[in-house]
Amino acid sequence: MKKTEPKICIIGSGNVAFHFTQILTQTGFNVVGIYARNHIASLQIAQQNSIKIFEKISEIPTDLDLYLVCVSDDAVVNVVNELKEVEGIVAHTSGSVAIQNSAKRNAVFYPLQTFSKSRKVVWGEIPILIESDRKNDLELLQIWASKISEKVSVLNSEQRKSLHLAAVMCNNFTNHLLELSFEILEKKNISTFFLHPLLKETISKAMELGPKNAQTGPAKRNDIKVINEHLKLLENDEVRNLYQFFSQAIIKKYHKNE
Amino acid sequence: MKKTEPKICIIGSGNVAFHFTQILTQTGFNVVGIYARNHIASLQIAQQNSIKIFEKISEIPTDLDLYLVCVSDDAVVNVVNELKEVEGIVAHTSGSVAIQNSAKRNAVFYPLQTFSKSRKVVWGEIPILIESDRKNDLELLQIWASKISEKVSVLNSEQRKSLHLAAVMCNNFTNHLLELSFEILEKKNISTFFLHPLLKETISKAMELGPKNAQTGPAKRNDIKVINEHLKLLENDEVRNLYQFFSQAIIKKYHKNE
Repeated sequence: MKKTEPKICIIGSGNVAFHFTQILTQTGFNVVGIYARNHIASLQIAQQNSIKIFEKISEIPTDLDLYLVCVSDDAVVNVVNELKEVEGIVAHTSGSVAIQNSAKRNAVFYPLQTFSKSRKVVWGEIPILIESDRKNDLELLQIWASKISEKVSVLNSEQRKSLHLAAVMCNNFTNHLLELSFEILEKKNISTFFLHPLLKETISKAMELGPKNAQTGPAKRNDIKVINEHLKLLENDEVRNLYQFFSQAIIKKYHKNE
Repeated sequence: MKKTEPKICIIGSGNVAFHFTQILTQTGFNVVGIYARNHIASLQIAQQNSIKIFEKISEIPTDLDLYLVCVSDDAVVNVVNELKEVEGIVAHTSGSVAIQNSAKRNAVFYPLQTFSKSRKVVWGEIPILIESDRKNDLELLQIWASKISEKVSVLNSEQRKSLHLAAVMCNNFTNHLLELSFEILEKKNISTFFLHPLLKETISKAMELGPKNAQTGPAKRNDIKVINEHLKLLENDEVRNLYQFFSQAIIKKYHKNE
């Protein structure tokens, strides 16, 4: 087995499978094929990357180096269980699912990013969190992951779960906040482009100063008058509750001794 | 009066006054001086920009072109009222305070950004929202604002208030979410740097695709198992409530017909 050109099979056809197949193929790995329940999506990925498509999981060769399981969290257990006879490493790519024990060589290969098919991925910056109980396999995963990203780290399942939780809050919840904010502007026919420089600075500032030192605004200043005016502007109960919740939490954080 | 070199007095000594004095001086405006209740902070700004400091508001010359009121929202009314005798434009810089009527020439000059003294400001990208009841003054403000930013727009007080509300949600609330997420990692001794590429992509993706098309994650997939596992991980009641609130809102948004 050449360490630098492992033979890989992709299992799954979602956003993670889509982007992993692309980067692994481009980096020169030997991606021999793809298997997924969704035939249309897997056919598309297979054609785009000129790889084979396996119609059944039992058709996948058992002598590959890596079986990359890119399926939804609740399907990981079953899929890994179906790969218990294979000789290579069976690595799933989920943040919240613990390392499995049903395959011969169980592992995790978790890329911490939000993937959409329509977005280009800058792989070099993306943390890849790897896990394996076998020292040799961990070394292999480290070598392989380092070919596609500069940020490879070993995390255990418990740490990875906390990281995934933090990622959900940072990404999904922030995105929801942005959606609610954009809706406020759209209702009043105000361009959402006005918010773009603020959004970029919000993240840059939080990364450089840390969010604790980056906070500003009415709740930070305990400016009840502005807060009440904003609450009056909000017609949607849910958004008003959200506004109140955040403002109270920020006031509590910065003014608890007053 | 030369339109391109208006004589300006800054009122206030907070983050907005600090950055406005700097950019206006650097751009070649004639910033004649600064007045603020906080003598130490205003002295610092005066020294850094080699401008005069006025000890009392009554010392400010009445024949300047622009009085830029960079005080906290609840002080705007009083400060503008104390400038009712001046001949120039009295523009406040607050997102949430309506245009005043006590000065001779009332206006608004609102820069939409989060300012901290320790952060460099990229003025060219920052939306400056201007307002005035006088056509000539609006033209002057447009000319002046265009010297420091490429994104100058006229908004009325009602529109500006909605924009400020959206900005508070996007910036202050997002920053709070980041703070809570970072705390989860810090408690487990996991580096918050892991989240940086995700944060950058969250914003880029939302700006390019729109937040509605950018959403991913367990709540978007209605993955109750992962959501429940995350809830179990959260020891803090407040954060658990927040997690539940967002997850329910996202599920409702994407699965309401199921």
